[in-house]
Amino acid sequence: MIVCQRPSGLRLFFTYRGSILQQIKAKLLVTMLLALAVTLTHGTLFRLKITMTPVPFSLIGIALAIFLGFRNSASYDRYWEGRKLWGQLVITSRNLCRQILTFVDTGGTPPSPSPLQRKMVYRVIAFTHALRHHLRESCPKEDLAPLLPANERERTDRARNKPNFILESLGNELRRCLAEKRTHPYFAASLDQNLDSLAGILGGCERIKNTPIPFAYTLLVHRTAYLYCFLLPFGLVDSLGFMTPFVVGIISYTFFGLDALGDALEQPFGLFPNDLPLTAIALTIEGDLREALGESDLPKPPPLVGDCLQ
Amino acid sequence: MIVCQRPSGLRLFFTYRGSILQQIKAKLLVTMLLALAVTLTHGTLFRLKITMTPVPFSLIGIALAIFLGFRNSASYDRYWEGRKLWGQLVITSRNLCRQILTFVDTGGTPPSPSPLQRKMVYRVIAFTHALRHHLRESCPKEDLAPLLPANERERTDRARNKPNFILESLGNELRRCLAEKRTHPYFAASLDQNLDSLAGILGGCERIKNTPIPFAYTLLVHRTAYLYCFLLPFGLVDSLGFMTPFVVGIISYTFFGLDALGDALEQPFGLFPNDLPLTAIALTIEGDLREALGESDLPKPPPLVGDCLQ
Amino acid sequence: MIVCQRPSGLRLFFTYRGSILQQIKAKLLVTMLLALAVTLTHGTLFRLKITMTPVPFSLIGIALAIFLGFRNSASYDRYWEGRKLWGQLVITSRNLCRQILTFVDTGGTPPSPSPLQRKMVYRVIAFTHALRHHLRESCPKEDLAPLLPANERERTDRARNKPNFILESLGNELRRCLAEKRTHPYFAASLDQNLDSLAGILGGCERIKNTPIPFAYTLLVHRTAYLYCFLLPFGLVDSLGFMTPFVVGIISYTFFGLDALGDALEQPFGLFPNDLPLTAIALTIEGDLREALGESDLPKPPPLVGDCLQ
Amino acid sequence: MIVCQRPSGLRLFFTYRGSILQQIKAKLLVTMLLALAVTLTHGTLFRLKITMTPVPFSLIGIALAIFLGFRNSASYDRYWEGRKLWGQLVITSRNLCRQILTFVDTGGTPPSPSPLQRKMVYRVIAFTHALRHHLRESCPKEDLAPLLPANERERTDRARNKPNFILESLGNELRRCLAEKRTHPYFAASLDQNLDSLAGILGGCERIKNTPIPFAYTLLVHRTAYLYCFLLPFGLVDSLGFMTPFVVGIISYTFFGLDALGDALEQPFGLFPNDLPLTAIALTIEGDLREALGESDLPKPPPLVGDCLQ
Amino acid sequence: MIVCQRPSGLRLFFTYRGSILQQIKAKLLVTMLLALAVTLTHGTLFRLKITMTPVPFSLIGIALAIFLGFRNSASYDRYWEGRKLWGQLVITSRNLCRQILTFVDTGGTPPSPSPLQRKMVYRVIAFTHALRHHLRESCPKEDLAPLLPANERERTDRARNKPNFILESLGNELRRCLAEKRTHPYFAASLDQNLDSLAGILGGCERIKNTPIPFAYTLLVHRTAYLYCFLLPFGLVDSLGFMTPFVVGIISYTFFGLDALGDALEQPFGLFPNDLPLTAIALTIEGDLREALGESDLPKPPPLVGDCLQ
Repeated sequence: MIVCQRPSGLRLFFTYRGSILQQIKAKLLVTMLLALAVTLTHGTLFRLKITMTPVPFSLIGIALAIFLGFRNSASYDRYWEGRKLWGQLVITSRNLCRQILTFVDTGGTPPSPSPLQRKMVYRVIAFTHALRHHLRESCPKEDLAPLLPANERERTDRARNKPNFILESLGNELRRCLAEKRTHPYFAASLDQNLDSLAGILGGCERIKNTPIPFAYTLLVHRTAYLYCFLLPFGLVDSLGFMTPFVVGIISYTFFGLDALGDALEQPFGLFPNDLPLTAIALTIEGDLREALGESDLPKPPPLVGDCLQ
Repeated sequence: MIVCQRPSGLRLFFTYRGSILQQIKAKLLVTMLLALAVTLTHGTLFRLKITMTPVPFSLIGIALAIFLGFRNSASYDRYWEGRKLWGQLVITSRNLCRQILTFVDTGGTPPSPSPLQRKMVYRVIAFTHALRHHLRESCPKEDLAPLLPANERERTDRARNKPNFILESLGNELRRCLAEKRTHPYFAASLDQNLDSLAGILGGCERIKNTPIPFAYTLLVHRTAYLYCFLLPFGLVDSLGFMTPFVVGIISYTFFGLDALGDALEQPFGLFPNDLPLTAIALTIEGDLREALGESDLPKPPPLVGDCLQ
Repeated sequence: MIVCQRPSGLRLFFTYRGSILQQIKAKLLVTMLLALAVTLTHGTLFRLKITMTPVPFSLIGIALAIFLGFRNSASYDRYWEGRKLWGQLVITSRNLCRQILTFVDTGGTPPSPSPLQRKMVYRVIAFTHALRHHLRESCPKEDLAPLLPANERERTDRARNKPNFILESLGNELRRCLAEKRTHPYFAASLDQNLDSLAGILGGCERIKNTPIPFAYTLLVHRTAYLYCFLLPFGLVDSLGFMTPFVVGIISYTFFGLDALGDALEQPFGLFPNDLPLTAIALTIEGDLREALGESDLPKPPPLVGDCLQ
Repeated sequence: MIVCQRPSGLRLFFTYRGSILQQIKAKLLVTMLLALAVTLTHGTLFRLKITMTPVPFSLIGIALAIFLGFRNSASYDRYWEGRKLWGQLVITSRNLCRQILTFVDTGGTPPSPSPLQRKMVYRVIAFTHALRHHLRESCPKEDLAPLLPANERERTDRARNKPNFILESLGNELRRCLAEKRTHPYFAASLDQNLDSLAGILGGCERIKNTPIPFAYTLLVHRTAYLYCFLLPFGLVDSLGFMTPFVVGIISYTFFGLDALGDALEQPFGLFPNDLPLTAIALTIEGDLREALGESDLPKPPPLVGDCLQ
Repeated sequence: MIVCQRPSGLRLFFTYRGSILQQIKAKLLVTMLLALAVTLTHGTLFRLKITMTPVPFSLIGIALAIFLGFRNSASYDRYWEGRKLWGQLVITSRNLCRQILTFVDTGGTPPSPSPLQRKMVYRVIAFTHALRHHLRESCPKEDLAPLLPANERERTDRARNKPNFILESLGNELRRCLAEKRTHPYFAASLDQNLDSLAGILGGCERIKNTPIPFAYTLLVHRTAYLYCFLLPFGLVDSLGFMTPFVVGIISYTFFGLDALGDALEQPFGLFPNDLPLTAIALTIEGDLREALGESDLPKPPPLVGDCLQ
């Protein structure tokens, strides 16, 4: 996520970092060069004047704008749903932590948590980091090591779906609590509901990651945008003359930009500048939960990479 | 679901597989031939010059774009709701499995599940496969055989609604657990809630499958799109001349493509390239649940058919 | 609901059944005749040439398209919410049936339900039929007779709100179960939640039925569409000549069609071709529940009326 | 809510009641008179010809239509959310009534409710009426008197938030039931959930009533619509001549009408013709609950005021 | 939130307070001056006539309107979600208060709450104020002091996340209630659900505050709007002449206004005129809860700042 003040005035036009311009500069240049060639030849190709008016662009432009708009809404909905799931993760892990400290091992003295309580809360933190690495396809080994008991590290390493494995061991832990009467059945069911909620978050994130917007849709919008921008100079050159490349540049910037932005928001869990700051959120959760355990050695917020929070 | 990298640069225009072009090539060709004929006769039909300007296309084009857009949103919502239901199926079956292993037959030694636990988890897997075949109207016999006890196979075969039948036998199993005191009433109710959730998924999928977007709506949008594209050459030929068939081709590609895409996404449970990969999801669930049971002989992911995951 | 294959190719234009054309043919004819008159008089009314250009239609057309689009979305949302409520009814009645067979009268031998279980499941079926007749304002007497005990038929007949009355007698039944210890309080509360869900379905359907889209909105969109279509020939006749009536016909077909479709979907519980197949859904529920009771004499699916499922 | 048949044919244009025309006739008249003046002077103001073409109106018209459309959707969503909350009120009060009769004072003979049951159900009815008056800022004294015990009337009168006060006394009643063992703790929690639901309805209605669409948004849309309509004659007079006032009238009718309709739907709890029929819904609830108590002296539906249900 | 009557008639145009005009007046002035310069030079820059027609503005204008519309919807959804969360806060704190008075310390005499009850309700009020200051990044010290026991004030001051800290101490309180048998485990779980709900509100507000609409999107829309307005005079001057600056002013007002409004609604928790009245809502909650405790010294509603409720 890009963390910077909105530039004002003229600087707005010269902000490059965080702009979508980086991803579309190649095709924007090609389009403008093409427009320049069309302008210089007055729209003539191999001695044949290409007869074109702005009318077709008006007809197709409305459709294109509406469909780009739809694709953008769908991508943004995925982005925002991803954010909601991670917001829910913040909420659920805090609730789970509060419930573990309130309902499990209630014989312990409140200010200092019992070893079992600490172990369970650590597992919730481990789930958060494992989910982050699972979505970004990176290795969670280093982050998980200090949070899991030694004998479980290797088994977690071997698991196909690491966050799910951690969730199951939380379930097993809960089972042991029940068997050893360290919690009341009623509270066990209440804790189990929050485990369900974690499973829901995991499943929701996997759904967003694994199912993109249907390929045929993206392809259709893509192709229409390209054809539109490549043909546009022929339609404008007769009335706009030497201004054609400039105007084509602006219009292409809008359409290519929105197309590229749709691509960027469609998969919100990566490490690109506009993606969600999963690392920062995971560290916030770790900080909140360690604070609730009474620890004082809290993790630092992650450094900015460029202007971006990862 | 199409699994392939987005082609970049020029290759974008020559990707044929996964494109909607396959389904609209016939009518696209007809439209372009018609446009060619109109161009060659200068818009004259039986010696009568058809007087037509771009204005009507501008008036009707906005309406058409908005209505195609609405239909597309509605279709995509159905597609995405179908995906959410199957995502929920992943979540609920994992939760149910965790609950069965945590709350049923708690006398057993945790690492190895009891026969009853295994039997119940197998039934959850069977539900997943039965639902897939139910939605695709194919025969689940082969997939269900290894998952159900021998005496139930034939009765499942005869059931009108197989996934519902499996759900009811899970309910009966739960009843026996209660009668034989193998679970606490409180947990029985909690398990029952997850059975409710499975029933909700079944009902939701049936709803999407059985109730298309109202026929009259589809017909109206269809007809308008056809009339629009067939009449378009008459409106453009006077100003565009020999470019008419080409421009008509591009505009028709957009409108026919979106119309065909709406049709494709409306029924997301089939075997077409843009449909949901139900087989792959069902096998993922089977793998996760068998892993939780401690089995090591996990199912392989299904092979790609073309570029498609089914 | 119309049940037919989408016609392809030319047949698309000659499908009459299920088309909205039936409902708008009168006003479409009037509009085209008016356009013909305008064409013949070259837009002169009482020797006065009506000066009109396409510009006003372009200005108002965008607004009209957007507002028709909004109204259509709102109507479709009502249609789809109605469908969801009936889908929920399928789910809830199956769940309730499973719960009655699992949690009530658990002393009975599982394969054959006890008389109390059968009586309660029958009441759930009766609720379904009563709701259908309640929404369609038809008489449920015949359908309910075989499902209710003889002494309750007359009281049900006299009730103001029959589905609500049946729900209340299910509540009374539950109370008796509790008093006679035929179910555990915990399960009683769980059953009660599903009764809440039935009450929610009843209330949701009543809300859709009783509260249309605000009348002033419908009136405004209606009037604008009519004025637009009636004045359109004056704006087009100068440039389109003898093609005017034809073009006016197509544009009017789109706008009148969408308007009529909005009307049709706004009240989805009737017996019109595009309405929801409540009878078919109710009979599916009856079939599923009777099958779960072990009965073999299941109701047949309802016959098609034309191409329509009612 | 306006209760009338949709007029058909020509009568559609002469329906005045329920139309938004009543609220915009003044400004519509001003706009048309202005257009008439512009027409008579051929767009000359103080001997200066105002050069204006339709182009700016086309540019701004799309924006205006989209923003009016957005505002209308937002207003309609508020209207429909209000309706859903009141629909939920119907459902929750029926459920609460069923639960009171099923779970409280179970020693009483079912057909005739105990005094405590009656007292609690009456309070639910009182909540409904108090909420209605709370939202409409009218005095509930007369409606509440027969529903509350004499000693509570005055205290209810003095309460800042009357529906909330009644909810709290229902909570106190529940507390007494628990203390006197007239209900099982399990059911108390279940009843309490429905009290939560009533509190949610109260809070939701207050939210809609107290937080309008941001003032700056309304102001911006308002101003743009006015400027658009007042300047329109200058843009049309050159091409439309004497038809200008008529065309300006139609376009202004659409834009002013939608603007006024947005205002009307934004606050759905008032007594205007397009507002929600809170009185009718409250009386329906009273009827249903009294019927469930076995009373026969049910309230009559409220008389229509004009064509409107209040 | 701006609290004022909608101005009618001519005054509508001269309302300045609450208008978005304050925030865009600088750039509006620049644009109009630029348009004036273009008008005076007849679109000639350094002796070079800039050839420009309205066509490009028509092409890009639709796209811009749709994307501004999308951004506005997204911003408004954030605003309205923020309002819903605070509405939920009103509801949940009332429910929690009712539950504390009903289910905790049930030995006390109802009219006067026990010290423990009062202490817990005060903490709920403290949570409300802490959340408000947390979102506005102001110091809650003064507001919290009278609501918390002396020994907790300093610890609350030191907490990283103050509302979360207060929530955790409510959880600890609940734990003590359980240990000292001052509430039934069943009710403890029910109270805990409402603490979950408070945690959900806190997490939801933090999500809105910390994750803006993706920066690249805002930048793209911003830049397009600026380029559009700055180039507009060149496109209009040939046909509109001396009216150009005026028309450019109106169009820029619409686009800049919507852009600025999107910015304003995106972060709804600040102290700007269109932001949510968090202080007023928090004081309403304080009033309701103190009234429920039987106190008579209720807080006054906050004074208006200008026309704004904060």
